[in-house]
Amino acid sequence: MQGLMMDMPLLVSSLLQHAARHYGDNEIVSRRIEGDIHRYTYADCHERARRLADAFVRSGTAVGDRIATLAWNGYRHMEMYYAVGGLGAIVHTINPRLHPEQIAWIVNHAGDTHLAFDMTFLPIVEAIASKCPTVKTWIAMTDADRQPKSDKIPNLVNYEEFLAQGSTDYRWPELDERTGCGLCYTSGTTGNPKGAMYTHRSTVLHAYAAALPDAMGASARDSILPVVPMFHVNAWGLPYICPLVGAKLVFPGPQLDGKSLYELIESEGVTYSAGVPTVWAGLLQYARENKLRFGTFNRTVIGGSACPPAMMKAFNEEFGVEVIHAWGMTETSPLGSLSRLQLKHDKLPAEAKQKILEKQGHALFGIDMKIVDDEGNELPWDGKTFGNLLVRGPWVMKEYFRGEGGDPLQYDVDGRGWFPTGDVATIDADGYMQITDRSKDVIKSGGEWISTIDLENLAVSHPAIMQAAVIGVHHPKWDERPLLVVVKRPGAEVTREELLAFYEGKIAKWWTPDDVQFVDSIPLGATGKILKTKLREQFADYKLPTA
Amino acid sequence: MQGLMMDMPLLVSSLLQHAARHYGDNEIVSRRIEGDIHRYTYADCHERARRLADAFVRSGTAVGDRIATLAWNGYRHMEMYYAVGGLGAIVHTINPRLHPEQIAWIVNHAGDTHLAFDMTFLPIVEAIASKCPTVKTWIAMTDADRQPKSDKIPNLVNYEEFLAQGSTDYRWPELDERTGCGLCYTSGTTGNPKGAMYTHRSTVLHAYAAALPDAMGASARDSILPVVPMFHVNAWGLPYICPLVGAKLVFPGPQLDGKSLYELIESEGVTYSAGVPTVWAGLLQYARENKLRFGTFNRTVIGGSACPPAMMKAFNEEFGVEVIHAWGMTETSPLGSLSRLQLKHDKLPAEAKQKILEKQGHALFGIDMKIVDDEGNELPWDGKTFGNLLVRGPWVMKEYFRGEGGDPLQYDVDGRGWFPTGDVATIDADGYMQITDRSKDVIKSGGEWISTIDLENLAVSHPAIMQAAVIGVHHPKWDERPLLVVVKRPGAEVTREELLAFYEGKIAKWWTPDDVQFVDSIPLGATGKILKTKLREQFADYKLPTA
Repeated sequence: MQGLMMDMPLLVSSLLQHAARHYGDNEIVSRRIEGDIHRYTYADCHERARRLADAFVRSGTAVGDRIATLAWNGYRHMEMYYAVGGLGAIVHTINPRLHPEQIAWIVNHAGDTHLAFDMTFLPIVEAIASKCPTVKTWIAMTDADRQPKSDKIPNLVNYEEFLAQGSTDYRWPELDERTGCGLCYTSGTTGNPKGAMYTHRSTVLHAYAAALPDAMGASARDSILPVVPMFHVNAWGLPYICPLVGAKLVFPGPQLDGKSLYELIESEGVTYSAGVPTVWAGLLQYARENKLRFGTFNRTVIGGSACPPAMMKAFNEEFGVEVIHAWGMTETSPLGSLSRLQLKHDKLPAEAKQKILEKQGHALFGIDMKIVDDEGNELPWDGKTFGNLLVRGPWVMKEYFRGEGGDPLQYDVDGRGWFPTGDVATIDADGYMQITDRSKDVIKSGGEWISTIDLENLAVSHPAIMQAAVIGVHHPKWDERPLLVVVKRPGAEVTREELLAFYEGKIAKWWTPDDVQFVDSIPLGATGKILKTKLREQFADYKLPTA
Repeated sequence: MQGLMMDMPLLVSSLLQHAARHYGDNEIVSRRIEGDIHRYTYADCHERARRLADAFVRSGTAVGDRIATLAWNGYRHMEMYYAVGGLGAIVHTINPRLHPEQIAWIVNHAGDTHLAFDMTFLPIVEAIASKCPTVKTWIAMTDADRQPKSDKIPNLVNYEEFLAQGSTDYRWPELDERTGCGLCYTSGTTGNPKGAMYTHRSTVLHAYAAALPDAMGASARDSILPVVPMFHVNAWGLPYICPLVGAKLVFPGPQLDGKSLYELIESEGVTYSAGVPTVWAGLLQYARENKLRFGTFNRTVIGGSACPPAMMKAFNEEFGVEVIHAWGMTETSPLGSLSRLQLKHDKLPAEAKQKILEKQGHALFGIDMKIVDDEGNELPWDGKTFGNLLVRGPWVMKEYFRGEGGDPLQYDVDGRGWFPTGDVATIDADGYMQITDRSKDVIKSGGEWISTIDLENLAVSHPAIMQAAVIGVHHPKWDERPLLVVVKRPGAEVTREELLAFYEGKIAKWWTPDDVQFVDSIPLGATGKILKTKLREQFADYKLPTA
């Protein structure tokens, strides 16, 4: 029997419309590429997004078209999100840190009809314009009087002039909530990039869940600074979450150095932020060097890669900023879990609390997770056993765009599909998940698994070590054994033997790396993660002293 | 173009399953009718709910069947919610304060197949059993060794024995999310009761929205006491919201007096509660008389009817408990709006903040609202103009069960249906809504509207007045003029002239009632609201001195 409630689709346009209607004069503040600060309101943003949507429709855009962006976090990018998604087309955010060849490949794979870009990326656009035949129009996201000229870019138009062709009479269409609204490619370390396509439904449900008190805890009492880029899984949903709750939104533009972030946090009364550990290291360093404190900043979500425990402690103890450790991926919209304490933890000693907060945390309602062995058998939630992490939920991908890579799901006995995250994790009896490795990085030594992340975290906690990576290398008896590769801090000295001795008593003895290699640098990918594939290539011919 | 995210329905069974899996040992504590305290966990509750669902299926229950409850807030009622809703049937919660004749009428209208009841309501069941031919089985919600016998009730079974027939192998079916899961009749003051039927989708979306920081702000750090009955619009969603966030759940059973509530709040570390003003008056009085303070209790949602400003102040200033004023109705699941401050209010003086908090607040994301005149024209959001309040959203009803009362919606120029709440309200420029009256109670004097609620609130703020109601009575020149009807506090004295003078300077002069009538009591309905229809009948022949 069908119930009798209104049948209203969940649409991203409703998010901005809600903010414009109910939080109309709450602010969106952006640091622009030009360096100045731009301020306007949700009502202004909604009006411009509708005009922009109308301009796209007038220029021939239809439901389902893909429209690309190469842009920093700012108000025009926000307008693109809503104009494109709202009209029923798909906003395809591209990571500008990829190689231009890769960007061109992605644009062609997506079949983008328009590409809007910040001036920083003009050289990229000039390099790829002739290689992207599906793009009819290139849109320079800048003021009309700063519009660049380029004979390498056919049909280059100005964002403001383009937008001005649209009418404010435009009304958002009532779409099927399973219509695509966003597309983001993973910069896979192997094979071609693959696209995850979000729906209106998945985006709105993700925003509801992410705003909850035990997740981001976002509210109209917050001033929120998304440091994580809008080209990186939709800035973890913040451009959708903030209008949902009416929070003030502060965009940092391209300036992500410690000084610029600190100044923006203080001048805009930022209460809350989100980003990857690398960015926070810069902010912490700047604040320490200048003996600064935060006036309003009280919590931040850290994800993308595991947050070093030392960084969590520094934020918390030195600066009074609560760190919320989170886990997710492009294929999960991205938020899957966050680590927050519960009522029952109140009486735990501080150290035990800290251990919980260092985990990647609890599944948000909507997401279910489990860990399985290589045969797909579910493993116990004891906080020790680690296995391949599988997830499912209404904001988890079921297949990649254009069927790339076939059906990625693993099916359980009930025929339900689970997405294999490629992560290896433990889950404890209270449901807290902790990533111990990537499936392809975990070291399988004599049938037992060794977590490279644990070994790396311990290595970087040594005062002489700046960066560390652990890879498995072939061993005749154990199949694989761990090799520790490190970059020393400038001026610091440490020996192989001292480093290996440093592990004593901190891990099971058989986890201790068989050797240490000192290098000048460790290869990083476009999102700042260690490229272990490269590292494994580099040490392909390496022989362990124990072999 | 369809996006590529997993197509998982939003189901109420997922809520309890999530809690059992991710917050398995968090507690559900219930004060039982027998007076003792029952404790178990979400994992226990989930197991028993699945057995109960299986028992219903084995007893012939099919998707879409209606199964009734006449019960207080407790763990068995919670199990009924999930067993019945989870299997695809519809849990029909009945208000036991209704007259038995009305209860029988509702059971027959719903066509309930089973009715489960707490022992308190055995006399009601005995009175109606022979009049309810659709009910095949009556279930006494009590321990097996306390099972009552009654020759007036055919096929009377024991809850525990019934549940024991079910298997823990039962798995929740994957239903269409638009399947009905709950049914609640409004105890309409005119005409027959009418049923609102919730869906799995509407219930889950409502739970997400209601848990948000600017709504209830519910979290796994909370111990939550739903004082509002589970037979009254699903205790405002708390039996669904608490498992979503993993909060400890504390059920008060039948004992809603100040002493019992106070003791439960303290012994179970309750942080948060929800209820109607009447209940809170009892708690405040008990705490004051015994000079008590709260240890953990820090906020409460008050709704159902407007919270007197004096009560808000008392909670806040005397007891440090934040009052969150809320608005909703059976037809809106129920939460439509809550009043919380925003970042931009930080610098307002305390009194201005208080004025905002006294409003019914901001629409939750999902709900849109507007005010219209009697011709359906939208009225401005200026905080002064008042009009009929219309709402829409995915947890707002579109029609009553079995089409009672026809199509209730009002359609706008875009063909979108809005539900007329029957309330009269203002909305200010910031989107804060304030109820000024019921549409049928507002007094239309010479074409202008006078809010009876404002006049009543002022009257009860007079120290000699215990209860007040204002009704419109016929006036030859102005059509209608207000008449103030009051009950004095025991031992207090006040004259007609003193009361009328009390309004001076507090409202527009022409709003002042034309007369005052002193009475011994004011008629109340089953949910504790003033029955103005009765009052109008009582004063049908009354002539104003100004007429």
